[in-house]
Amino acid sequence: MIFRQLFDEETSTLTYILVDAVTRDAVIIDPVLGQDKRDLAVLEELNANLKYIAETHIHADHVTGARALKEATGCKFISGVGTGITCGDKLMEEGEIINFGHEVLYAILTPGHTDGCTTYRWRNRLFTGDTLLIGACGRTDFQQGSAERLYESLQKLQSYPDEYLVYPAHDYNNHRVSCIGQEKISNPYLMGLSKEGFIEKMENLNLPNPAKIDVAVPANMVCGADDRGEIDTRVVEHSA
Amino acid sequence: MIFRQLFDEETSTLTYILVDAVTRDAVIIDPVLGQDKRDLAVLEELNANLKYIAETHIHADHVTGARALKEATGCKFISGVGTGITCGDKLMEEGEIINFGHEVLYAILTPGHTDGCTTYRWRNRLFTGDTLLIGACGRTDFQQGSAERLYESLQKLQSYPDEYLVYPAHDYNNHRVSCIGQEKISNPYLMGLSKEGFIEKMENLNLPNPAKIDVAVPANMVCGADDRGEIDTRVVEHSA
Repeated sequence: MIFRQLFDEETSTLTYILVDAVTRDAVIIDPVLGQDKRDLAVLEELNANLKYIAETHIHADHVTGARALKEATGCKFISGVGTGITCGDKLMEEGEIINFGHEVLYAILTPGHTDGCTTYRWRNRLFTGDTLLIGACGRTDFQQGSAERLYESLQKLQSYPDEYLVYPAHDYNNHRVSCIGQEKISNPYLMGLSKEGFIEKMENLNLPNPAKIDVAVPANMVCGADDRGEIDTRVVEHSA
Repeated sequence: MIFRQLFDEETSTLTYILVDAVTRDAVIIDPVLGQDKRDLAVLEELNANLKYIAETHIHADHVTGARALKEATGCKFISGVGTGITCGDKLMEEGEIINFGHEVLYAILTPGHTDGCTTYRWRNRLFTGDTLLIGACGRTDFQQGSAERLYESLQKLQSYPDEYLVYPAHDYNNHRVSCIGQEKISNPYLMGLSKEGFIEKMENLNLPNPAKIDVAVPANMVCGADDRGEIDTRVVEHSA
């Protein structure tokens, strides 16, 4: 197995590249606009063929780098069915899979931060997007956020074995990996909270909106923007 | 691959069980005295055959559970060549391997906390013992400790890819896993320290001795004690 974790300093976004060691077919999870040259260089170094871009959700804090990667490689774009987008090649239902080489990526629907939030599982690694962060979880105060649904999704993730690794879409505290067991004993959003207690906690966070939300959400709803941040409506037309 | 991480509350020791998924041959890393029934139950649940006990070093804070496991399973005992013990079945040199089923465990000699400290690598997982802890490192103020050698060993571990997972022998802060990349950006014993700065830092920790050191070190030098904590000198005689 070949695995790379990449970090975008500006938005603290973690991007992942998964490669089948035999066929070199690859998946990239949550690429960031402007990092396409970095991502393509890593793929080239690994002699990998990008087959899929997998988005964990419609991000509000950065624009996806999907469009440039799709144009450069001809790969497909997937996200969870709950995103409701029309530009994707496949909207994943619960338990649905994609294959890359001999490897399998599983979709686990984990709504709450947004309707379309999806965790991807590859082997014993969970790519949790903004559903489960290391020592935290995604916010639920905008963009279809639902603390009740997020609570259920966090319960679902805790049903995986303690040793399963947790790789989130963001980290702001120099963490890079956790596991379900670590989160169970240290994440204040998982530990000893009833559903009601969790909802109350989430309703009182009083966070400011992400700086880029007004640009990022519309751009991500159409699978990305170009290098100048402009949304290419052709993507919508082509896929509709 | 099958992997289990176990935690001993009393000594905050992390024990690892690695199993080949096909043949079910297994290795246990750093078992703890008194946890042999737990360990054997996990092995049975996994339908696994214990082939090796691998010790990362001569522990000063707990007695190894090796003796009971060896008696129950007939497995072999390995540790690093620097431990200088005469009771082991194999003392690992740099780069030496053991096979369990189709899987391979590699020895990486990482002296400093003790002379015999050895990191074991299985796939992309590093079992670092007390050499590299999550956000910390082993102490060097007793039992052949050498800050200079530990510095070199920590440099060696940092040469592994950022994505390689770090599984230490202990954690006192509810961490369970890290990776080389995370340690590089967050471990105060790795970041921006010259060899001289590291040695100075280590020389000024002023820690009390571990409570069990006077029992643990002699017992671990002969590959373990029995359930009453008594050292079985037959092990020494048999292997000498």
